[in-house]
Amino acid sequence: MFRDTLAADAVRLQAQFDRVLGGLDDLPVTRAMRHATTGGKALRGFLVLESARLHDVAEARAIWPATAIEAMHAYSLVHDDLPCMDDDDLRRGRPTVHVAWDQATAVLAGDALQALAFELAAHPEAGPPEIRAELALTLARAGGMAGMVLGQALDIAAESAAEALALEQITRLQAGKTGALIEWAATAGARLAGADPDPLRQYARALGLAFQIADDILDVEGDVRKAGKRLQKDASAGKATFVSLLGLDPARKRAAELVEAACDAVSVHGARAETLQQAARFVIARDS
Amino acid sequence: MFRDTLAADAVRLQAQFDRVLGGLDDLPVTRAMRHATTGGKALRGFLVLESARLHDVAEARAIWPATAIEAMHAYSLVHDDLPCMDDDDLRRGRPTVHVAWDQATAVLAGDALQALAFELAAHPEAGPPEIRAELALTLARAGGMAGMVLGQALDIAAESAAEALALEQITRLQAGKTGALIEWAATAGARLAGADPDPLRQYARALGLAFQIADDILDVEGDVRKAGKRLQKDASAGKATFVSLLGLDPARKRAAELVEAACDAVSVHGARAETLQQAARFVIARDS
Repeated sequence: MFRDTLAADAVRLQAQFDRVLGGLDDLPVTRAMRHATTGGKALRGFLVLESARLHDVAEARAIWPATAIEAMHAYSLVHDDLPCMDDDDLRRGRPTVHVAWDQATAVLAGDALQALAFELAAHPEAGPPEIRAELALTLARAGGMAGMVLGQALDIAAESAAEALALEQITRLQAGKTGALIEWAATAGARLAGADPDPLRQYARALGLAFQIADDILDVEGDVRKAGKRLQKDASAGKATFVSLLGLDPARKRAAELVEAACDAVSVHGARAETLQQAARFVIARDS
Repeated sequence: MFRDTLAADAVRLQAQFDRVLGGLDDLPVTRAMRHATTGGKALRGFLVLESARLHDVAEARAIWPATAIEAMHAYSLVHDDLPCMDDDDLRRGRPTVHVAWDQATAVLAGDALQALAFELAAHPEAGPPEIRAELALTLARAGGMAGMVLGQALDIAAESAAEALALEQITRLQAGKTGALIEWAATAGARLAGADPDPLRQYARALGLAFQIADDILDVEGDVRKAGKRLQKDASAGKATFVSLLGLDPARKRAAELVEAACDAVSVHGARAETLQQAARFVIARDS
């Protein structure tokens, strides 16, 4: 059921991106934006749509923040893949933007996708102004130097640090790098409804950390053909990860505990939270 | 009078950036953000503050969109200066971010400054939610693939085009690259007041174009020590500019006409528009 919903939501998100990007000039940057917003799992967009369904928010409203968070995520991947950053040539089973085009196009496509994320979050059809202002404000905080970019900056700082990071530091790094956007996505449904976002926030915090531990396990154990991206990057770069710090089995155990905590956090919503609970279990079972 | 106001506003904006950036982790990316938001003329921030004064909007509200537009402008400069873009080593008389730090820090500092711009535009102290949602939405449009990034993308596409751009194409390119943020800045005061932004929009459109023509003239005639950035870049790259298309004297004449049109557009505001009119005249007389 979760997998069907995820797949159906990915189709919805793609159709919305087609509409939004279809109106732009046909230029390499626009084509690169389309490339970067295609072919992902769309887990963050699903979290917006599903949390909106949980709160009976119309999809016609929720689709705007759902595409917003996917645009934000896509921009971060395009910039992360740049030669001066992680220098990746493969993403979602296809060449990265700077490989398919060039670095200037990748910088600009990422920049335009970030601007687009805010245009979509603040879009008039997303709801009343106080909700749209809140969506834009919280998205900015989640994406900037208190959230995602902070995580990236800590990651870069760690590369030149004399000592490997401790568990507490890795946790803070990942809370920014992956956690902040996941939390924004999962709480968006409550924000759209004007409801208390706290249960979804607790769900998202546990889920985000489980997601990153699963990513570290995938980096060690995964299959590049299934993952659609290069693996064993952290170990070869000598980076501290949850796996290098905890060991493989304890990392797996910790991820499973976090998934149960995530499921508990939304149990206040009863049977309606089932798809979100399945999503949490999927996060540690995925191969890409 | 205008020069004093511009200088005083630059001090106000700097103090606000100190407050906003002071709360962030001390990391190379944060230091680079501070570097990038220091030492500019702050013309865009001035336009927000002055258009707010014109509409009797409190400075405590206007300072948020004013720093927002300066953060947006700063991000665009940091990314434009990257080796894969314009490859500049000098900006505001100091080394560019990727020279003072490295490319990864420049990419991330630019990304964080763009997120910060939206955080500031949607800030609760900027005004009622409907105004903040509107500020965020219009800033996203001005900054993205219908505005600033479109201008950049057209500029890059022109470099590999077989024929030099015609006047109409250069005008569209510049309307995006420089014009969109200037228009957002100059209309912000009216938006903050809930007033008709049209006179300020007409002012800004003429001003933005005059600004770019003046920039092209500066590129040919300027003094690198006063300008604080490398000059004669367009001619050596064989780029079409207003000067190469129109010739130096007709370009100067066109800029002067546009400045008069800008002044006329705000004459509905009477004597209160005097500082904005002085600002327009300054734009074509500046040496940096």
